[in-house]
Amino acid sequence: MANEEPAKRRGRGRRPSDEVRQEILAAAGDLLLREGMAAFTIEKVATLAGASRMTIYKWWPSKGALAFDGYRATVEPTLAFPDTGDLTADLRTQLHAFVRLLTETPAGRVMAELIGQAQTDPELRASLLEHYTVPRRERAAEVMRRAQERGQMRADADPQVVVDQLWGACYHRLLTPDHPLTVEFADALVDNVLRGVAA
Amino acid sequence: MANEEPAKRRGRGRRPSDEVRQEILAAAGDLLLREGMAAFTIEKVATLAGASRMTIYKWWPSKGALAFDGYRATVEPTLAFPDTGDLTADLRTQLHAFVRLLTETPAGRVMAELIGQAQTDPELRASLLEHYTVPRRERAAEVMRRAQERGQMRADADPQVVVDQLWGACYHRLLTPDHPLTVEFADALVDNVLRGVAA
Repeated sequence: MANEEPAKRRGRGRRPSDEVRQEILAAAGDLLLREGMAAFTIEKVATLAGASRMTIYKWWPSKGALAFDGYRATVEPTLAFPDTGDLTADLRTQLHAFVRLLTETPAGRVMAELIGQAQTDPELRASLLEHYTVPRRERAAEVMRRAQERGQMRADADPQVVVDQLWGACYHRLLTPDHPLTVEFADALVDNVLRGVAA
Repeated sequence: MANEEPAKRRGRGRRPSDEVRQEILAAAGDLLLREGMAAFTIEKVATLAGASRMTIYKWWPSKGALAFDGYRATVEPTLAFPDTGDLTADLRTQLHAFVRLLTETPAGRVMAELIGQAQTDPELRASLLEHYTVPRRERAAEVMRRAQERGQMRADADPQVVVDQLWGACYHRLLTPDHPLTVEFADALVDNVLRGVAA
Protein backbone atom coordinates (compact mmCIF):
# COMPACT_ATOMS: atom_id res chain seq x y z
CA MET A 1 0.00 0.00 0.00
CA ALA A 2 2.61 2.54 1.09
CA ASN A 3 4.68 1.80 -2.02
CA GLU A 4 1.76 2.84 -4.22
CA GLU A 5 2.06 6.38 -2.87
CA PRO A 6 5.72 7.18 -3.46
CA ALA A 7 5.05 10.93 -3.47
CA LYS A 8 4.09 10.72 0.18
CA ARG A 9 7.40 9.29 1.34
CA ARG A 10 11.03 9.00 0.49
CA GLY A 11 13.07 5.80 0.43
CA ARG A 12 13.15 3.88 3.68
CA GLY A 13 16.23 4.56 5.77
CA ARG A 14 16.93 7.98 4.27
CA ARG A 15 14.37 9.86 6.35
CA PRO A 16 15.61 11.57 9.50
CA SER A 17 14.48 9.82 12.66
CA ASP A 18 12.28 12.70 13.80
CA GLU A 19 10.49 12.77 10.46
CA VAL A 20 9.79 9.04 10.62
CA ARG A 21 8.44 9.49 14.13
CA GLN A 22 6.09 12.29 13.01
CA GLU A 23 4.84 10.23 10.06
CA ILE A 24 4.14 7.26 12.31
CA LEU A 25 2.23 9.50 14.73
CA ALA A 26 0.21 11.06 11.92
CA ALA A 27 -0.62 7.65 10.46
CA ALA A 28 -1.64 6.35 13.89
CA GLY A 29 -3.91 9.34 14.56
CA ASP A 30 -5.50 9.13 11.11
CA LEU A 31 -6.14 5.41 11.41
CA LEU A 32 -7.60 5.74 14.90
CA LEU A 33 -9.98 8.55 13.92
CA ARG A 34 -11.01 6.80 10.71
CA GLU A 35 -11.55 3.28 11.96
CA GLY A 36 -11.60 3.36 15.76
CA MET A 37 -9.61 1.30 18.24
CA ALA A 38 -11.20 -2.02 17.25
CA ALA A 39 -9.51 -1.85 13.83
CA PHE A 40 -6.28 -0.25 15.05
CA THR A 41 -3.15 -2.39 14.68
CA ILE A 42 0.56 -1.61 14.74
CA GLU A 43 0.91 -3.49 11.45
CA LYS A 44 -1.56 -1.14 9.69
CA VAL A 45 0.21 1.92 11.08
CA ALA A 46 3.55 0.52 9.90
CA THR A 47 2.18 0.04 6.37
CA LEU A 48 0.57 3.49 6.26
CA ALA A 49 3.74 5.21 7.51
CA GLY A 50 6.14 3.13 5.45
CA ALA A 51 8.00 2.12 8.61
CA SER A 52 8.88 -1.25 10.11
CA ARG A 53 7.08 -2.66 13.11
CA MET A 54 10.46 -2.85 14.84
CA THR A 55 10.89 0.91 14.43
CA ILE A 56 7.48 1.48 15.96
CA TYR A 57 8.16 -0.80 18.94
CA LYS A 58 11.43 1.07 19.51
CA TRP A 59 9.43 4.19 20.42
CA TRP A 60 6.05 2.84 21.62
CA PRO A 61 5.82 -0.25 23.85
CA SER A 62 2.22 -1.12 22.91
CA LYS A 63 -0.69 -0.51 20.60
CA GLY A 64 -2.40 1.66 23.23
CA ALA A 65 0.67 3.84 23.70
CA LEU A 66 0.91 4.43 19.94
CA ALA A 67 -2.84 5.08 19.59
CA PHE A 68 -3.01 7.77 22.28
CA ASP A 69 0.23 9.41 21.21
CA GLY A 70 -1.04 9.51 17.63
CA TYR A 71 -4.38 10.88 18.76
CA ARG A 72 -2.66 13.60 20.80
CA ALA A 73 -0.38 14.56 17.90
CA THR A 74 -3.33 14.68 15.49
CA VAL A 75 -5.64 16.79 17.66
CA GLU A 76 -2.87 19.03 19.06
CA PRO A 77 -3.17 21.71 16.34
CA THR A 78 -6.95 21.84 16.82
CA LEU A 79 -6.67 21.88 20.59
CA ALA A 80 -3.93 24.45 21.11
CA PHE A 81 -4.16 26.39 24.36
CA PRO A 82 -4.16 30.08 23.43
CA ASP A 83 -2.62 32.50 25.93
CA THR A 84 -3.56 35.99 24.76
CA GLY A 85 -3.63 37.43 28.24
CA ASP A 86 -7.45 37.28 28.50
CA LEU A 87 -8.21 34.16 30.56
CA THR A 88 -11.96 34.13 29.89
CA ALA A 89 -11.53 34.45 26.13
CA ASP A 90 -8.73 31.88 26.04
CA LEU A 91 -10.71 29.28 27.99
CA ARG A 92 -13.76 29.82 25.76
CA THR A 93 -11.70 29.50 22.58
CA GLN A 94 -10.06 26.30 23.74
CA LEU A 95 -13.27 24.73 25.04
CA HIS A 96 -15.19 25.59 21.87
CA ALA A 97 -12.54 23.80 19.81
CA PHE A 98 -12.61 20.86 22.23
CA VAL A 99 -16.42 20.54 22.16
CA ARG A 100 -16.48 20.80 18.35
CA LEU A 101 -13.82 18.13 18.03
CA LEU A 102 -15.81 15.79 20.30
CA THR A 103 -19.21 16.46 18.72
CA GLU A 104 -18.48 17.19 15.05
CA THR A 105 -15.73 14.67 14.28
CA PRO A 106 -15.20 10.94 14.99
CA ALA A 107 -12.86 11.98 17.84
CA GLY A 108 -15.72 12.07 20.36
CA ARG A 109 -16.83 8.49 19.75
CA VAL A 110 -13.20 7.30 19.60
CA MET A 111 -12.27 8.96 22.89
CA ALA A 112 -15.44 7.69 24.59
CA GLU A 113 -14.67 4.14 23.51
CA LEU A 114 -11.01 4.40 24.48
CA ILE A 115 -11.80 5.79 27.94
CA GLY A 116 -14.43 3.07 28.22
CA GLN A 117 -12.04 0.30 27.28
CA ALA A 118 -9.37 1.74 29.60
CA GLN A 119 -11.61 0.91 32.59
CA THR A 120 -10.92 -2.80 32.16
CA ASP A 121 -7.52 -2.66 30.37
CA PRO A 122 -4.74 -1.44 32.72
CA GLU A 123 -2.18 -1.10 29.92
CA LEU A 124 -4.54 1.04 27.84
CA ARG A 125 -5.33 3.12 30.95
CA ALA A 126 -1.62 3.74 31.57
CA SER A 127 -1.17 4.80 27.92
CA LEU A 128 -4.19 7.11 28.06
CA LEU A 129 -2.84 8.86 31.14
CA GLU A 130 0.78 9.07 30.02
CA HIS A 131 0.27 10.02 26.39
CA TYR A 132 -2.89 12.11 26.55
CA THR A 133 -4.50 13.03 29.88
CA VAL A 134 -1.40 14.13 31.78
CA PRO A 135 0.22 16.26 29.03
CA ARG A 136 -3.11 17.89 28.07
CA ARG A 137 -3.93 18.58 31.73
CA GLU A 138 -0.51 20.12 32.25
CA ARG A 139 -0.93 22.48 29.28
CA ALA A 140 -4.30 23.67 30.59
CA ALA A 141 -2.95 24.17 34.12
CA GLU A 142 0.01 26.15 32.74
CA VAL A 143 -2.33 28.65 31.05
CA MET A 144 -4.11 29.12 34.39
CA ARG A 145 -0.88 29.49 36.35
CA ARG A 146 0.10 32.33 34.03
CA ALA A 147 -3.32 33.90 34.63
CA GLN A 148 -2.61 33.64 38.36
CA GLU A 149 0.73 35.43 37.83
CA ARG A 150 -1.12 38.19 35.96
CA GLY A 151 -3.56 38.47 38.89
CA GLN A 152 -6.58 37.27 36.86
CA MET A 153 -7.17 34.15 38.91
CA ARG A 154 -7.16 33.67 42.68
CA ALA A 155 -3.73 32.47 43.84
CA ASP A 156 -5.33 29.97 46.24
CA ALA A 157 -7.43 28.26 43.53
CA ASP A 158 -5.90 25.01 42.28
CA PRO A 159 -5.67 25.02 38.45
CA GLN A 160 -5.82 21.20 38.47
CA VAL A 161 -9.28 21.32 40.06
CA VAL A 162 -10.46 23.82 37.45
CA VAL A 163 -9.32 21.39 34.73
CA ASP A 164 -11.81 18.83 36.09
CA GLN A 165 -14.55 21.50 36.22
CA LEU A 166 -14.07 22.52 32.59
CA TRP A 167 -12.72 19.64 30.47
CA GLY A 168 -13.82 16.98 32.96
CA ALA A 169 -17.37 18.36 32.89
CA CYS A 170 -17.32 18.03 29.07
CA TYR A 171 -16.14 14.42 29.33
CA HIS A 172 -19.02 13.78 31.74
CA ARG A 173 -21.55 14.85 29.07
CA LEU A 174 -19.64 12.82 26.46
CA LEU A 175 -19.66 9.62 28.54
CA THR A 176 -23.10 9.86 30.20
CA PRO A 177 -24.91 11.80 27.49
CA ASP A 178 -28.21 12.75 29.12
CA HIS A 179 -27.61 16.48 28.52
CA PRO A 180 -26.15 18.05 25.37
CA LEU A 181 -22.47 18.86 24.94
CA THR A 182 -22.50 22.26 23.19
CA VAL A 183 -20.46 25.45 22.97
CA GLU A 184 -23.17 27.17 25.05
CA PHE A 185 -22.52 24.57 27.76
CA ALA A 186 -18.80 25.34 27.49
CA ASP A 187 -19.49 29.06 27.95
CA ALA A 188 -21.63 28.33 31.01
CA LEU A 189 -18.82 26.20 32.49
CA VAL A 190 -16.33 29.04 32.10
CA ASP A 191 -18.76 31.61 33.47
CA ASN A 192 -19.65 29.50 36.52
CA VAL A 193 -16.10 28.64 37.47
CA LEU A 194 -14.73 32.16 36.98
CA ARG A 195 -17.58 34.19 38.53
CA GLY A 196 -19.02 31.59 40.89
CA VAL A 197 -22.71 30.72 41.11
CA ALA A 198 -23.33 31.92 44.68
CA ALA A 199 -25.75 34.84 44.90
CA MET B 1 -30.17 -21.77 47.15
CA ALA B 2 -33.02 -19.51 48.18
CA ASN B 3 -34.89 -22.43 49.69
CA GLU B 4 -32.00 -23.07 52.04
CA GLU B 5 -32.56 -19.71 53.68
CA PRO B 6 -36.23 -19.84 54.64
CA ALA B 7 -35.80 -17.22 57.37
CA LYS B 8 -34.90 -14.62 54.76
CA ARG B 9 -38.13 -14.94 52.78
CA ARG B 10 -41.69 -15.95 53.09
CA GLY B 11 -43.51 -18.36 50.80
CA ARG B 12 -43.51 -17.40 47.15
CA GLY B 13 -46.69 -15.62 46.09
CA ARG B 14 -47.60 -14.37 49.54
CA ARG B 15 -45.29 -11.36 49.51
CA PRO B 16 -46.80 -8.05 48.43
CA SER B 17 -45.62 -6.95 45.01
CA ASP B 18 -43.77 -3.91 46.33
CA GLU B 19 -41.86 -6.02 48.82
CA VAL B 20 -40.79 -8.47 46.11
CA ARG B 21 -39.63 -5.55 43.98
CA GLN B 22 -37.54 -4.14 46.84
CA GLU B 23 -35.98 -7.54 47.54
CA ILE B 24 -35.06 -7.98 43.89
CA LEU B 25 -33.49 -4.51 43.81
CA ALA B 26 -31.53 -5.18 47.01
CA ALA B 27 -30.31 -8.53 45.67
CA ALA B 28 -29.30 -6.93 42.37
CA GLY B 29 -27.37 -4.14 44.10
CA ASP B 30 -25.63 -6.55 46.46
CA LEU B 31 -24.63 -8.91 43.66
CA LEU B 32 -23.36 -6.08 41.47
CA LEU B 33 -21.21 -4.53 44.22
CA ARG B 34 -19.91 -7.91 45.34
CA GLU B 35 -19.06 -9.49 41.99
CA GLY B 36 -19.17 -6.76 39.35
CA MET B 37 -21.05 -6.68 36.06
CA ALA B 38 -19.10 -9.56 34.51
CA ALA B 39 -20.65 -12.01 36.99
CA PHE B 40 -24.07 -10.32 37.11
CA THR B 41 -26.96 -12.42 35.75
CA ILE B 42 -30.74 -12.18 36.09
CA GLU B 43 -30.76 -15.84 37.10
CA LYS B 44 -28.47 -15.19 40.09
CA VAL B 45 -30.59 -12.22 41.19
CA ALA B 46 -33.73 -14.35 40.90
CA THR B 47 -32.19 -17.04 43.12
CA LEU B 48 -30.93 -14.52 45.69
CA ALA B 49 -34.28 -12.73 45.88
CA GLY B 50 -36.39 -15.89 45.78
CA ALA B 51 -38.27 -14.58 42.76
CA SER B 52 -38.87 -15.98 39.31
CA ARG B 53 -37.05 -14.70 36.24
CA MET B 54 -40.48 -13.97 34.75
CA THR B 55 -41.26 -11.64 37.67
CA ILE B 56 -37.98 -9.82 37.10
CA TYR B 57 -38.55 -9.41 33.37
CA LYS B 58 -42.02 -8.01 34.13
CA TRP B 59 -40.35 -4.97 35.73
CA TRP B 60 -36.91 -4.75 34.09
CA PRO B 61 -36.46 -5.35 30.35
CA SER B 62 -32.76 -6.27 30.54
CA LYS B 63 -29.82 -7.18 32.74
CA GLY B 64 -28.46 -3.63 32.46
CA ALA B 65 -31.74 -2.07 33.54
CA LEU B 66 -31.88 -4.31 36.62
CA ALA B 67 -28.21 -3.73 37.48
CA PHE B 68 -28.41 0.08 37.44
CA ASP B 69 -31.76 0.17 39.23
CA GLY B 70 -30.36 -2.15 41.90
CA TYR B 71 -27.21 -0.05 42.18
CA ARG B 72 -29.28 3.13 42.57
CA ALA B 73 -31.53 1.55 45.22
CA THR B 74 -28.50 0.25 47.14
CA VAL B 75 -26.50 3.48 47.16
CA GLU B 76 -29.53 5.78 47.61
CA PRO B 77 -29.39 5.81 51.45
CA THR B 78 -25.66 6.63 51.34
CA LEU B 79 -26.10 9.27 48.66
CA ALA B 80 -29.10 11.18 49.98
CA PHE B 81 -29.20 14.87 49.01
CA PRO B 82 -29.51 16.83 52.25
CA ASP B 83 -31.38 20.14 52.10
CA THR B 84 -30.76 21.89 55.41
CA GLY B 85 -30.95 25.37 53.93
CA ASP B 86 -27.15 25.82 53.78
CA LEU B 87 -26.18 25.12 50.17
CA THR B 88 -22.41 25.00 50.78
CA ALA B 89 -22.71 22.54 53.67
CA ASP B 90 -25.26 20.40 51.83
CA LEU B 91 -23.11 20.11 48.69
CA ARG B 92 -20.07 19.23 50.78
CA THR B 93 -21.93 16.58 52.76
CA GLN B 94 -23.31 14.96 49.62
CA LEU B 95 -20.01 15.06 47.72
CA HIS B 96 -18.04 13.65 50.66
CA ALA B 97 -20.43 10.68 50.79
CA PHE B 98 -20.17 10.30 47.01
CA VAL B 99 -16.36 10.40 46.99
CA ARG B 100 -16.15 7.95 49.89
CA LEU B 101 -18.53 5.54 48.15
CA LEU B 102 -16.42 5.67 44.98
CA THR B 103 -13.04 5.37 46.71
CA GLU B 104 -13.68 3.25 49.81
CA THR B 105 -16.14 0.66 48.48
CA PRO B 106 -16.33 -1.54 45.36
CA ALA B 107 -18.87 0.95 43.95
CA GLY B 108 -16.15 3.06 42.33
CA ARG B 109 -14.67 0.21 40.31
CA VAL B 110 -18.16 -1.11 39.44
CA MET B 111 -19.37 2.29 38.21
CA ALA B 112 -16.16 2.89 36.24
CA GLU B 113 -16.54 -0.47 34.50
CA LEU B 114 -20.25 0.05 33.84
CA ILE B 115 -19.74 3.53 32.37
CA GLY B 116 -16.86 2.05 30.39
CA GLN B 117 -18.92 -0.81 29.02
CA ALA B 118 -21.81 1.57 28.26
CA GLN B 119 -19.63 3.28 25.63
CA THR B 120 -19.93 0.28 23.32
CA ASP B 121 -23.25 -1.18 24.56
CA PRO B 122 -26.23 1.04 23.62
CA GLU B 123 -28.69 -0.92 25.77
CA LEU B 124 -26.46 -0.62 28.84
CA ARG B 125 -26.01 3.09 28.10
CA ALA B 126 -29.79 3.60 27.95
CA SER B 127 -30.19 1.76 31.27
CA LEU B 128 -27.42 3.80 32.90
CA LEU B 129 -29.07 7.05 31.88
CA GLU B 130 -32.65 6.05 32.69
CA HIS B 131 -32.07 4.23 35.97
CA TYR B 132 -29.13 6.14 37.42
CA THR B 133 -27.75 9.28 35.76
CA VAL B 134 -31.02 11.08 35.04
CA PRO B 135 -32.74 10.52 38.44
CA ARG B 136 -29.53 11.33 40.39
CA ARG B 137 -28.94 14.45 38.28
CA GLU B 138 -32.52 15.56 38.84
CA ARG B 139 -32.21 15.22 42.64
CA ALA B 140 -29.03 17.31 42.67
CA ALA B 141 -30.56 19.98 40.44
CA GLU B 142 -33.64 20.14 42.70
CA VAL B 143 -31.49 20.97 45.75
CA MET B 144 -29.90 23.79 43.75
CA ARG B 145 -33.24 25.11 42.49
CA ARG B 146 -34.40 25.42 46.09
CA ALA B 147 -31.17 27.29 46.89
CA GLN B 148 -32.01 29.64 44.01
CA GLU B 149 -35.48 30.21 45.51
CA ARG B 150 -33.83 31.05 48.85
CA GLY B 151 -31.55 33.52 47.07
CA GLN B 152 -28.34 31.55 47.77
CA MET B 153 -27.53 30.84 44.15
CA ARG B 154 -27.64 33.13 41.12
CA ALA B 155 -30.99 32.76 39.33
CA ASP B 156 -29.24 32.82 35.93
CA ALA B 157 -26.89 29.91 36.74
CA ASP B 158 -28.05 26.58 35.31
CA PRO B 159 -28.12 23.89 38.04
CA GLN B 160 -27.59 21.22 35.37
CA VAL B 161 -24.23 22.76 34.45
CA VAL B 162 -23.20 22.81 38.11
CA VAL B 163 -23.99 19.08 38.31
CA ASP B 164 -21.32 18.46 35.65
CA GLN B 165 -18.86 20.72 37.52
CA LEU B 166 -19.29 18.85 40.82
CA TRP B 167 -20.26 15.20 40.27
CA GLY B 168 -19.02 15.16 36.67
CA ALA B 169 -15.62 16.44 37.84
CA CYS B 170 -15.48 13.53 40.32
CA TYR B 171 -16.31 11.04 37.56
CA HIS B 172 -13.48 12.55 35.53
CA ARG B 173 -10.98 11.69 38.28
CA LEU B 174 -12.56 8.24 38.65
CA LEU B 175 -12.31 7.43 34.93
CA THR B 176 -9.00 9.11 34.05
CA PRO B 177 -7.26 8.76 37.42
CA ASP B 178 -4.15 10.90 37.05
CA HIS B 179 -5.08 13.07 40.05
CA PRO B 180 -6.54 11.82 43.35
CA LEU B 181 -10.28 11.74 44.07
CA THR B 182 -10.52 12.94 47.69
CA VAL B 183 -12.86 14.85 50.01
CA GLU B 184 -10.41 17.77 49.84
CA PHE B 185 -10.89 17.76 46.05
CA ALA B 186 -14.66 17.76 46.62
CA ASP B 187 -14.37 20.79 48.92
CA ALA B 188 -12.28 22.63 46.32
CA LEU B 189 -14.92 21.86 43.66
CA VAL B 190 -17.67 23.37 45.81
CA ASP B 191 -15.56 26.38 46.73
CA ASN B 192 -14.58 27.10 43.11
CA VAL B 193 -18.06 26.81 41.69
CA LEU B 194 -19.75 28.83 44.43
CA ARG B 195 -17.17 31.64 44.86
CA GLY B 196 -15.58 31.58 41.42
CA VAL B 197 -11.84 31.47 40.80
CA ALA B 198 -11.48 34.86 39.09
CA ALA B 199 -9.36 37.33 41.07
